[in-house]
Amino acid sequence: MERRHRVVVVGAGFGGLALVKSLEGVPVDVVLVDSNNFHTFQPLLYQVATAGLDGDDIAHPVRGIVARQGGDIDVRLGTVTSLDLDRRTVHFDDGPPLEYDELVLAAGAVTATYGVPGVAEHAFGLKNLADALGLRAHVLHQFERVAVDRSLIDEGVLNFVIAGGGPTGVELAGGLVELFDRVLVKDFPTLDVRRARVVLVEPADRLLSTFSPRLSGMARRTLAGRGVEVVLGVGVAGTDGKVVELTDGSRVPVGTLVWTAGITASPLARQVAEQLGDDALTRGGRIVVGPQLTVPGHDEVFVIGDLAGSTDDAGDLLPQVAPVAMQGGAFVGEVIRARRDGVEVGWFRYRDKGSMATIGRHAAVAQLPGGIRLSGTPGWLAWLGLHLVMLVGFRNRVNVLVNWAWNYLTYDRASRLIVGESPPKE
Amino acid sequence: MERRHRVVVVGAGFGGLALVKSLEGVPVDVVLVDSNNFHTFQPLLYQVATAGLDGDDIAHPVRGIVARQGGDIDVRLGTVTSLDLDRRTVHFDDGPPLEYDELVLAAGAVTATYGVPGVAEHAFGLKNLADALGLRAHVLHQFERVAVDRSLIDEGVLNFVIAGGGPTGVELAGGLVELFDRVLVKDFPTLDVRRARVVLVEPADRLLSTFSPRLSGMARRTLAGRGVEVVLGVGVAGTDGKVVELTDGSRVPVGTLVWTAGITASPLARQVAEQLGDDALTRGGRIVVGPQLTVPGHDEVFVIGDLAGSTDDAGDLLPQVAPVAMQGGAFVGEVIRARRDGVEVGWFRYRDKGSMATIGRHAAVAQLPGGIRLSGTPGWLAWLGLHLVMLVGFRNRVNVLVNWAWNYLTYDRASRLIVGESPPKE
Repeated sequence: MERRHRVVVVGAGFGGLALVKSLEGVPVDVVLVDSNNFHTFQPLLYQVATAGLDGDDIAHPVRGIVARQGGDIDVRLGTVTSLDLDRRTVHFDDGPPLEYDELVLAAGAVTATYGVPGVAEHAFGLKNLADALGLRAHVLHQFERVAVDRSLIDEGVLNFVIAGGGPTGVELAGGLVELFDRVLVKDFPTLDVRRARVVLVEPADRLLSTFSPRLSGMARRTLAGRGVEVVLGVGVAGTDGKVVELTDGSRVPVGTLVWTAGITASPLARQVAEQLGDDALTRGGRIVVGPQLTVPGHDEVFVIGDLAGSTDDAGDLLPQVAPVAMQGGAFVGEVIRARRDGVEVGWFRYRDKGSMATIGRHAAVAQLPGGIRLSGTPGWLAWLGLHLVMLVGFRNRVNVLVNWAWNYLTYDRASRLIVGESPPKE
Repeated sequence: MERRHRVVVVGAGFGGLALVKSLEGVPVDVVLVDSNNFHTFQPLLYQVATAGLDGDDIAHPVRGIVARQGGDIDVRLGTVTSLDLDRRTVHFDDGPPLEYDELVLAAGAVTATYGVPGVAEHAFGLKNLADALGLRAHVLHQFERVAVDRSLIDEGVLNFVIAGGGPTGVELAGGLVELFDRVLVKDFPTLDVRRARVVLVEPADRLLSTFSPRLSGMARRTLAGRGVEVVLGVGVAGTDGKVVELTDGSRVPVGTLVWTAGITASPLARQVAEQLGDDALTRGGRIVVGPQLTVPGHDEVFVIGDLAGSTDDAGDLLPQVAPVAMQGGAFVGEVIRARRDGVEVGWFRYRDKGSMATIGRHAAVAQLPGGIRLSGTPGWLAWLGLHLVMLVGFRNRVNVLVNWAWNYLTYDRASRLIVGESPPKE
């Protein structure tokens, strides 16, 4: 028996899931590949890291998602080790290779440290669930250490430096001060928790550079008002794990350094470049794609999301955010469907739906289409509602709501468990 | 300034928490020591292992619990490495030692493999949260492996052997078949999930030997009716990780071996024996205590819970279950209070409140005081209600309720994430 036309999708993030959904009813076999058996709702990783949500609240089993959808979708748990574009085959770390008729690469991005000395060894990233759980355990562990030996405060063990003033850095900074001021201050009644410092370092002259300057300013003032030390125009020059050196020459003793200052395309991009040459990658290491999100010379290979070098009408690279990935996934699904129906589709065009970042309780900034700008409580409510609706899976939504309501009403956070995911970094 | 009278409590399980609660209002400084920063609700570990509950649902931060109580309670995160009973000092793996005026040892028990070959290396225990998360990841991973390579079924990768037919073994067996038959059968539509085998092995001639023979029989029949292979009168003789050899000489190829066949007192018991001699321990390795739960010759040292060799009126060791620990904790709190008030208290006497074990949806057995015996749906409802009431922390209760209601209504389990807590055992 000849096998049916097979579409292999690498990555069960926002892009991969949107694609699978848009293929509903198309008579092809779909294999969804991911190295985890769950989808991670990345925008809320900072909530896990700051003990506001459980890890399980923002992760949903991939098999459960696709089973609900029905259709001929298979799931493969595994890590892609190489691609053979000529033989149309994907190879894995474990188990047999997989042939495809069409391939969609949606493997996202990973933390990039740009070679800044010591960052890869000593800093925490915040790109996946293991990162978030490891950071949570580490942060809480610092307070436990200081509770036993107060002199560690003078060594900087309660100094938390966040490199990067984008949405992730801003949200993490806001979440940390809230965790400290509302929760840990009660957990450690004999400790002067106010001595904990959160320092947010951003090389540009403002936070949230993709937002309007007015919203950037509001974010900075709100964070500063809540006790975050915002340092603009300065970057991290290096660290030995005990001290962070900034580009202005100043040195900050540190117990925790979080690096949210850069991402780069998944290592899958390099595997494509090995076969097609370095011209196959954009300057930021993404895979060059045509207007239908295919790899030049390989119409059967699509790239979407953070991994794709897709551009806007002006030729600028699109931002590496969830809406781009989701729209790309839906578009590629349409292309695959149209090819089977023998009809034409146009080019991919990203429609900006706006962006949001939350700073904490009753404070968020939102920049919506049509020039609508929200901040403060309205921004926060918009942020809350959008993220609840977006969260995959009804049950997760209920649990997230329970956790949020609980946190809101009590200023408590029940998720502050130190589970040994990763040894504390020194 | 002279320090106040200090009570050091080692272990934040049911016993340690009951003690701390019963010391409310007593003018002493309490230091609660644990190697985790959370209390684990051990009776529901099997629910985490079978993806019915999130890890965070059954764990609650110790500092949150004691902060709610108020009073002069300090928490120390650390592992006790040695005790100096003469100098009244506790030593830790990290940080300075701690002096005490009164010491309460409530460190519980750990898995005991009794030297059965290969069990320590290849079997999973189910005594703590890391065990449960590791087992969950491993179980789900076996199905993912088989999904890629069906021939692994013939090698026994989907055979799950549980050694020990006590409550933990029975509940785990029931939870596993429910996970397979209700959830994974939908997650793996192209896999013949019914080929997965759950084998429950018990050397005695019945399951749940502390229950009445009638309830034992009901448990066996219910499990068998749901597809568990119950093997009585046979134990595990050894394993190499691929095959389990039973004491009747038969061999079962296996992907997962779970050992619930024995526990032994925490290693703290050995530290006491090092100072007081081996006579300080009972045959099962617990610490010998007098009628007020103190160590002979050391009135200032109490032992409660699974670690204590406390006995009933007939001189038999009390069972190592939560109610004994909780009543012991409450009793020692009274003794400490009475000493300060200069009044007398009697001896510790355990009041049996009954015991329960659940087999799955609509099936549990309960043996209550006054000869009341419940089974089937009434037993299950009693079990459900009791555990919800007992769960520490209101928020955990809400979440557990949400998860259970969700599981019940949909036969779905959202917690089936493979998070890399432990590498799969081979």
